[in-house]
Amino acid sequence: MATDLIPRVKGVRDFYPEDWALQKWLGETCIALGAGFGYQEYEGPVMEYMDLYLGKTSEEIVSRQTFTLSGRDERPLVLRPELTPTLARMVAQQEDRLVFPLRWQSYGRFYRYERPQRGRGRSFFQWNIDLLGSDTLHADAEIITIACELFKTLGLSPDQVTVKVNDRQGLECHLIRSFGLRSGQIRPLFAIVDRIDKMPYGKFRVGLAELGLDSEQIDGLVEMLESKDPGFSPRLEQVIRLLERNDVSEYVEPDLKIVRGFDYYTGIVFEAWATHSLRRALFGGGRYDNLTLQVGGRKPVPGVGFAVGDMAITELLKESDLLDHVTSPVADLLVSVFSEDTAEQAASYARLARSRGLAVELGLKPGQRLDRQLKYAHRKGIPFVTIIGPDEVSSKTVLLKNLATGEQTVLPSCNVGKLTELIRRYRQR
Amino acid sequence: MATDLIPRVKGVRDFYPEDWALQKWLGETCIALGAGFGYQEYEGPVMEYMDLYLGKTSEEIVSRQTFTLSGRDERPLVLRPELTPTLARMVAQQEDRLVFPLRWQSYGRFYRYERPQRGRGRSFFQWNIDLLGSDTLHADAEIITIACELFKTLGLSPDQVTVKVNDRQGLECHLIRSFGLRSGQIRPLFAIVDRIDKMPYGKFRVGLAELGLDSEQIDGLVEMLESKDPGFSPRLEQVIRLLERNDVSEYVEPDLKIVRGFDYYTGIVFEAWATHSLRRALFGGGRYDNLTLQVGGRKPVPGVGFAVGDMAITELLKESDLLDHVTSPVADLLVSVFSEDTAEQAASYARLARSRGLAVELGLKPGQRLDRQLKYAHRKGIPFVTIIGPDEVSSKTVLLKNLATGEQTVLPSCNVGKLTELIRRYRQR
Repeated sequence: MATDLIPRVKGVRDFYPEDWALQKWLGETCIALGAGFGYQEYEGPVMEYMDLYLGKTSEEIVSRQTFTLSGRDERPLVLRPELTPTLARMVAQQEDRLVFPLRWQSYGRFYRYERPQRGRGRSFFQWNIDLLGSDTLHADAEIITIACELFKTLGLSPDQVTVKVNDRQGLECHLIRSFGLRSGQIRPLFAIVDRIDKMPYGKFRVGLAELGLDSEQIDGLVEMLESKDPGFSPRLEQVIRLLERNDVSEYVEPDLKIVRGFDYYTGIVFEAWATHSLRRALFGGGRYDNLTLQVGGRKPVPGVGFAVGDMAITELLKESDLLDHVTSPVADLLVSVFSEDTAEQAASYARLARSRGLAVELGLKPGQRLDRQLKYAHRKGIPFVTIIGPDEVSSKTVLLKNLATGEQTVLPSCNVGKLTELIRRYRQR
Repeated sequence: MATDLIPRVKGVRDFYPEDWALQKWLGETCIALGAGFGYQEYEGPVMEYMDLYLGKTSEEIVSRQTFTLSGRDERPLVLRPELTPTLARMVAQQEDRLVFPLRWQSYGRFYRYERPQRGRGRSFFQWNIDLLGSDTLHADAEIITIACELFKTLGLSPDQVTVKVNDRQGLECHLIRSFGLRSGQIRPLFAIVDRIDKMPYGKFRVGLAELGLDSEQIDGLVEMLESKDPGFSPRLEQVIRLLERNDVSEYVEPDLKIVRGFDYYTGIVFEAWATHSLRRALFGGGRYDNLTLQVGGRKPVPGVGFAVGDMAITELLKESDLLDHVTSPVADLLVSVFSEDTAEQAASYARLARSRGLAVELGLKPGQRLDRQLKYAHRKGIPFVTIIGPDEVSSKTVLLKNLATGEQTVLPSCNVGKLTELIRRYRQR
């Protein structure tokens, strides 16, 4: 019978209660924030036909980072690497029934076959929030405002995080008009700019030269990209103004180097960055106005949104000691079981307390030594224990012990008003 | 550009907000029930090495119903068809650190490649709740009590659902001792008994005859299996008594035909059945005392638990009109935007209302005709709309419109006390 322990799959996570509490808190915090702006929750399937991602999700992700499911169906089936194509499919499917603009959000699991590293894994959670059916810059500004409000809610300050905003389409036009680039050069240029922070400056220049830019063009381009000047784009300027009005401008800066890797973006794009420590993009998003058409919808539905993975942000929150208050809830009370003779009274009392909304564990071993039952409660972090022995049964009482203070209180066995009050006070302390 | 709509994968579901609201309500209801009994939430990865299931999960599920992931790793990788083996792995991994007994629960997604049919799909949600580290019958009784309490909480009466309980190991001993069966006959016999409700009676008898039972043995066996008499097992009798004490016996009956398909069960087993309409097992569970050893743990950790899939139970709840109260939450208020000149005041008011916990949508198109903004709110089900025109700006007020009654109220623009009160009253109506 002595087999080796079957291991966990590489790059995925087990969530023990203390881990899951963090994950759940993060998900609930995101969803509550979105609900405050009127966003409704939805969810898609975890598997999709691969066609759904082709030519939309970044080439690298589709060809090298998706998990494929074996030979069960005629079309290749993959585990979803992101949600936006699913959202577009769902909206296109019911475009005649849905009331636009749609404000939708979702918190779910996604899969990418990446080399596991700090802040990245093969299975992760992601909050997706999208506004569909509005082409005004007010929609872009609302979405970016929510990204900033997420940081406020999580306790991350503008010192720690920045939301960098750009107008991808505007930049494209500007490069063609003012730098004399050909439109065929834009996509490969953006692919290089998207990786600008991952490569040495010399290599970046070589990449541009290989695209056919002369050194004057390269100098001009570098100067412009580093300028943080939104003047090239009236749209970008207006979004920046709307974000000021929305009282989040301390988190925001224009950054012309932000072009995003996903091919479906068509206008304003943005990325949230950790300024210290991680020094990397935490998440990003932008406007995509053609995606429902690309998945076979009959009418164009403009969209704007973003997606936040859990791993990088959790890393940052832990470093900043912003997760210390999150713990896995345990029972309020252990109803210990003194003996077989009093087991029935113990069970009744537990039932009564639960019916009033308390979380109650009941002892499973009548007659187990009381000090062991108390020790168990202490190790679990359960704050109160009741004892119901023969004396308590005959006087119709229970003895309540506060494990932290040692304080003992005699309570009636037929109602839990006083107990509820003591536990409520303990929770608020 | 006119492509066909890329379809959803067969047998999986899209959850539009109204569908997701049901799913979320069911999940939260289960988790809240478990928390009341002191069960902590955890979660496992969605993919595991196939070894984890071999010889534990039913043969049929492992060999024919798991989704396999292609060629990315040396060991075959599958999408989880159930959670119990993952739970055993996680517990075995940290058996020295964990404080037993463990009360753990989880609500997550699972995958089986089944023929899609009513109440079944290829991707489903499942609530798993397990008690590990206790071998007393009080643990079995607690778990079965929770199954019954789930029905009470969902509003399903003992007329509609029954929890059938058996002692699988006790039955095995009894069949050997009193019916003269050989131990090698037990497993194939249980495989037939497990499918007794899916086959004609004649075919059932033929199956038993093929196992080598003579017609007298078959008559005796049939009579016993149909008897609902727990007398063969003192353990089953005690569990039935404990369930009476826990005030759930109206949901419970002994049923000797319940043996469960999963090979890891070692004692008390049970299944919840819908008595009308569906007339099928809704979910099941039982005691498994060797599972952590089977996945490579060093010490045996006794366990008992069950898992409820979402699909059959949702079907039953819909038929019983028990889901009508569940809807996807929408915003409390639409702050309409009268014109560009008043857009700033509208945005401020929306921000103020959100800061007090209200869910607020802000109009995205300053100057859009007011009747269209009102119509949008009406179609979405948003109960209140504010209007802030030039008059309101100069008098520092907002005009609040209740869409259901048409009632209009003038409110101050600098605080939302009255607004919050009106919305709270509306929610409680």
